Amino acid sequence: MAPVKTTNFDLYDIIVFGDETEKANVNEVELEGWVRTNRDNGSIGFIEFNDGTYFKNVQLVYLKECKDHDLLASLRTGAAIKITGKVKLTPENKQPFEVEVISCELEGDVADDYPLQKKRHSFEFLREIAHLRPRANTFQAVFRVRSVLAFAIHEFFQERGFLYIHTPLITTNDGEGAGNVFDVIAHDSKNPEDFYGHRVNLTVTGQLHVEPFALAFRDVYTFGPTFRAEHSNTVRHASEFWMVEPEMAFCDLNDNMQVIEDCIKYCINYVLEACPDEINFFNSMIDKTLIDRLHHVANSEFKRMTYTEGVELLQKAVKDGFNFENKDIFWGMDLQSEHERYLTEQVVKGPLFLTDYPKDIKAFYMRQNDDGKTVAACDLLVPAVGELVGGSQREERYDLLKAKMDFMGITEGLEWYLDTRKYGGCKHSGFGIGFDRLLMYVTGMQNIRDVQPFPRTSNTIKY
Amino acid sequence: MAPVKTTNFDLYDIIVFGDETEKANVNEVELEGWVRTNRDNGSIGFIEFNDGTYFKNVQLVYLKECKDHDLLASLRTGAAIKITGKVKLTPENKQPFEVEVISCELEGDVADDYPLQKKRHSFEFLREIAHLRPRANTFQAVFRVRSVLAFAIHEFFQERGFLYIHTPLITTNDGEGAGNVFDVIAHDSKNPEDFYGHRVNLTVTGQLHVEPFALAFRDVYTFGPTFRAEHSNTVRHASEFWMVEPEMAFCDLNDNMQVIEDCIKYCINYVLEACPDEINFFNSMIDKTLIDRLHHVANSEFKRMTYTEGVELLQKAVKDGFNFENKDIFWGMDLQSEHERYLTEQVVKGPLFLTDYPKDIKAFYMRQNDDGKTVAACDLLVPAVGELVGGSQREERYDLLKAKMDFMGITEGLEWYLDTRKYGGCKHSGFGIGFDRLLMYVTGMQNIRDVQPFPRTSNTIKY
Repeated sequence: MAPVKTTNFDLYDIIVFGDETEKANVNEVELEGWVRTNRDNGSIGFIEFNDGTYFKNVQLVYLKECKDHDLLASLRTGAAIKITGKVKLTPENKQPFEVEVISCELEGDVADDYPLQKKRHSFEFLREIAHLRPRANTFQAVFRVRSVLAFAIHEFFQERGFLYIHTPLITTNDGEGAGNVFDVIAHDSKNPEDFYGHRVNLTVTGQLHVEPFALAFRDVYTFGPTFRAEHSNTVRHASEFWMVEPEMAFCDLNDNMQVIEDCIKYCINYVLEACPDEINFFNSMIDKTLIDRLHHVANSEFKRMTYTEGVELLQKAVKDGFNFENKDIFWGMDLQSEHERYLTEQVVKGPLFLTDYPKDIKAFYMRQNDDGKTVAACDLLVPAVGELVGGSQREERYDLLKAKMDFMGITEGLEWYLDTRKYGGCKHSGFGIGFDRLLMYVTGMQNIRDVQPFPRTSNTIKY
Repeated sequence: MAPVKTTNFDLYDIIVFGDETEKANVNEVELEGWVRTNRDNGSIGFIEFNDGTYFKNVQLVYLKECKDHDLLASLRTGAAIKITGKVKLTPENKQPFEVEVISCELEGDVADDYPLQKKRHSFEFLREIAHLRPRANTFQAVFRVRSVLAFAIHEFFQERGFLYIHTPLITTNDGEGAGNVFDVIAHDSKNPEDFYGHRVNLTVTGQLHVEPFALAFRDVYTFGPTFRAEHSNTVRHASEFWMVEPEMAFCDLNDNMQVIEDCIKYCINYVLEACPDEINFFNSMIDKTLIDRLHHVANSEFKRMTYTEGVELLQKAVKDGFNFENKDIFWGMDLQSEHERYLTEQVVKGPLFLTDYPKDIKAFYMRQNDDGKTVAACDLLVPAVGELVGGSQREERYDLLKAKMDFMGITEGLEWYLDTRKYGGCKHSGFGIGFDRLLMYVTGMQNIRDVQPFPRTSNTIKY
């Protein structure tokens, strides 16, 4: 009987979770993948083998008698091989099985200067070989969780009847009017209006484009790349990053916060269930508080507090001697990360929605509250990180929105956006999740450069 | 008892598919949505109401006695309303139920100049109001299918253990070396190298960036926007469009074709099942052959034929008097759409993989066959459209690939790509699906401008 073609994932799946018949049927197998490590003590050799389908390696064992012994003994870290072998259950060992090699072919050898050797490398070093680091343990875990988390987002919204809208990346507007966009110009053209007959730039948010779809389909979301030409050289800023931006008609700020809470809990539970090996790895190697933190958030009731209450609590904390770096707390200020973290970590000891911010520090499209001073915004703050999600109810009143946009001088080119308030507009709300930051949160990874496949930050672009 | 908040979708779901108890429990409901049409004959009025959650309208009925009769009678097409009403089952009518209005609130009125009136509008006209056309029937159907099809893609690959990789949009390379890229420059900067220390452009393909991930995770895919600064003013070209690009290690051209076939069939069956109302609408309003065509492809065995055989058949067809516009058929030419359609429509009468193209008309990364003249490429041709998917086995042999890249002068900046052939490289393959074109195929829509939320084509960008 010919050996059965299989993978790391399928082997573990059958041997750990299969029934006795399934296990008994696993006999001779064919595997293709890469050598992680190889040690040969003369009479017996061991290869840690991985084909990328599962976090755990398969242990290959080769004996002196094997017809391809010399090839096997010569294999170097990183080599691509095809083997056939016999599966041996080893319930008494750490690994539940091993594969005794019958034959081996070298599919692709490794040059001597292979930079990804067995020893532990720094994340800084691995960033320099972004095309090879996915083979390292940490990045096997990071990019598998990235994929699972992205799918969790889609599943959450699709299950609830939200439509996925591909909002455009090239646009004429700069979203929140914050500047710092990238211009887009046909290659080597001198005239920036050349291609479209208009200056264009990369989008900073899909929200303005997705709102008209909420006003047609009720519940919609975008999930795509956004861009900021900011020279912020921090561990949390990238110039290209993925955003999730849901938008819901007939939805007020309270409904909005409920969806945010449900979404974050869904994503955390989804990853905990789908990636236990990866999350255990992060918990032991990256952040020992990770699993506790994720469970805590998944099981917490998210608290709600107004910005005004928050400022009062922070002022009291200063009076009581709490040692903020910035102690000058006043109503109207943009809270810093240390202030947000105080509220979520020290005051409510869990996830916290801070709501109703001063209108002057928030975006033009947020709905003005009756006090005339604040807007119906909400930021979700979580322990250890601070802000994770930002949302708001949108200003649906044409006159108020137009006055604000005129005042800011951004009406021209956004007439279509105002139209949505003129033609059957209604109460609606939405939020934005920085996907890369959410991934940092669920993995414990500390630098956005280490959760993006090919990170884009200022002054470096090798790929 | 307070009325139950519900939606078009949930009402139809319960009344058409629910059991007797569920139906009996539907009594007083609250709905929020938009007026499609309103006619009042004095004693009784009818509103076609839709909240965007489902393709079919709910019929609202209002009587003279209703306390909000005057408001109801005055409602115009497009108005946003909230109503409470009593559900009446009408199994004898075309609609299985109607809602008799008890109360109505106007949430958002419509200005007199609302461009989306009851009458039928041309697609050209509707393109000019891309922010409002999602409310029109055709676009309700298009964008729902777009969302469902996108999710089908994700589900197909996730179920099979593929990892979703977010390849970067800003890059230093132009993919296939075809030129026609968009440059990306920090806003108003005079120096194109300003931000990244290097000239950068928008990606034309995620393939080069996703290959290193296939060589780490075996099966991966990208699904994101790509860009071409081409002034091709056709119904099938846009400057911004979404591509699906799977890449598989230890996979040859034959395996690759099997995945393409499975994927296309999965997507078609998924949409047929999830969107029957929309597909019926397209079949009656857009393309009367649509459903037959989709069923035919879903149930066909995809045929395979080499480019060389294809050229011979085309030459024979010319000899036999078939009236191609371009009758000059020779080995080495790039086949035109009429030639591709002849092979798929007239010869095999179904989906056809054309394989092993002349190397000079295909991309540099495709694997050279032993004949030295052709490469291991495959294009999937389907009736009524022509090319739907393009794929290939990749050149994994370092020396051959390097020689080709040197010859084309594209090695500089792509050393990292060559690295993947130096360090444990292996047989691998992948393909690309133009997502917008696939959507045109499954809906019968004839213009790419009518399947993108805000289409991006040369010389027009209003949003």
